[in-house]
Amino acid sequence: MRLVRFGPAGAERPGLLDGDGAVRDLGGVVDDISGATLTAAGLTRLRAIDPESLPLAPKDARIGACVGRVGHFVAVGLNFEDHAREAGLEIPSEPILFSKAPNCIVGPNDDIILPKHHKKVDWEVEIAFVIGDRAEHVAPAEALAHVAGVCICNDVSERHFQIERGGQWMKGKGSPTFGPLGPWLVTLDEIPDVNDLGMWLDVNGERRQTGSTATMIFNIAHLVSYISSFMVLDPGDVVTTGTPPGVGMGMKPPRYLKAGDVVTLGIDRLGEQRQTVVAYPG
Amino acid sequence: MRLVRFGPAGAERPGLLDGDGAVRDLGGVVDDISGATLTAAGLTRLRAIDPESLPLAPKDARIGACVGRVGHFVAVGLNFEDHAREAGLEIPSEPILFSKAPNCIVGPNDDIILPKHHKKVDWEVEIAFVIGDRAEHVAPAEALAHVAGVCICNDVSERHFQIERGGQWMKGKGSPTFGPLGPWLVTLDEIPDVNDLGMWLDVNGERRQTGSTATMIFNIAHLVSYISSFMVLDPGDVVTTGTPPGVGMGMKPPRYLKAGDVVTLGIDRLGEQRQTVVAYPG
Repeated sequence: MRLVRFGPAGAERPGLLDGDGAVRDLGGVVDDISGATLTAAGLTRLRAIDPESLPLAPKDARIGACVGRVGHFVAVGLNFEDHAREAGLEIPSEPILFSKAPNCIVGPNDDIILPKHHKKVDWEVEIAFVIGDRAEHVAPAEALAHVAGVCICNDVSERHFQIERGGQWMKGKGSPTFGPLGPWLVTLDEIPDVNDLGMWLDVNGERRQTGSTATMIFNIAHLVSYISSFMVLDPGDVVTTGTPPGVGMGMKPPRYLKAGDVVTLGIDRLGEQRQTVVAYPG
Repeated sequence: MRLVRFGPAGAERPGLLDGDGAVRDLGGVVDDISGATLTAAGLTRLRAIDPESLPLAPKDARIGACVGRVGHFVAVGLNFEDHAREAGLEIPSEPILFSKAPNCIVGPNDDIILPKHHKKVDWEVEIAFVIGDRAEHVAPAEALAHVAGVCICNDVSERHFQIERGGQWMKGKGSPTFGPLGPWLVTLDEIPDVNDLGMWLDVNGERRQTGSTATMIFNIAHLVSYISSFMVLDPGDVVTTGTPPGVGMGMKPPRYLKAGDVVTLGIDRLGEQRQTVVAYPG
């Protein structure tokens, strides 16, 4: 299934794509695409529904983030060897974790708002996974059974806040609009090999990032298992898994986003995102 | 007001303390002590209620965490000069931020569960503040108007996971039960000076930590303002603000928690917590 949320920001309705790629309204069936809907039992209930029996969503509806009410938004750093090298940092021997404020999550095509006092706003195409069933000390071989699906995440980052303002990375990772998720949450049964998906990102039509989930240092199964050894991952929690080379910080000289820029990005089978960069209001 | 949540874990009811310190049931008035209840408007509605008109909670009811549905659980590191020194770390020039998994939050007197494979589980008495009205780029002078109230937090930490497992601190901060909050969320109008509250923590009746909010490097108003310059703080978000000296990691030799230990802690006007340390089940 390809699950979506559509409608005005903050008032999204749950939906899914039918065989023709049209959005169907699941609002009569579940209250949201979030925790309880995403457990194995919840997904089984949705699979039993004939999409053609559901009303069509308005054709011009805004697409929201593909998961709502996210309890914890975890991110993995330096998970591509060549990206670690471009950032001038050591290849990690175990996954680096940080967090993004859940209220930075927005729709896949919403504007990216430059933070007040920003200096170095950067892009990062990533594959994120969304937890279905609660995961605590899960073995790698069982890990994917705890994942409801995957989606695109642009892990938008302010490098000055992240790196030059003391301590941990989260200062540069949680500004409003820094977490576009979607367009679709694609359940794993739709994807022949989640460890072999091409990834790309353009700024103003110029290719900046090219990669594949095949070159992740720690794959999704490993990450579920690893993170679940430190904390519990609950239904609807989101983990974004790191970016391939080609971020602005790694360019010589570095290049960052400015108002008016357009960022487009995509991952095989997961669709595409398109964001316009805008100034901080007022 | 002193707001509480009582009842079985996961099914807490909202409540408040009456003039005699008895818990009154607010379940007929609001659905929870969380975001919407905690805005200035929400608190004004609660203040208009005569506590004596509310039913008494069962006398032996468990006390839950004093705030529910926490969207973001932020923590401040090394916010007491003498604690930074005991940890062998530099005095920070600006606040260090990290996060705790929101699902580690438990009641003030619930057991602390030692994580599987734990080596160095430590205690940290802290004052936490809970956001009332949304805060984005708030000036220090206006900052306390965005705080609903304050409570005790034991920022339980696994130092091996936090420090010796690569990268950011959150690995050692979010294990289940690592965030006891409460017993009460005390609204700021009840506290003459939030920057002058004594703090203490005992392990098995021996004093380990003694401090005061007076010696925080960055006070609560500063922290609200600072954090809101990087991310939006929403109603019901919790920020725990750092610990005074006396943690196990700073003892010579270091001492950590083991099954059977009893941790008691308190802050002036905010009540006391009492946790029994237990082994990981199974």
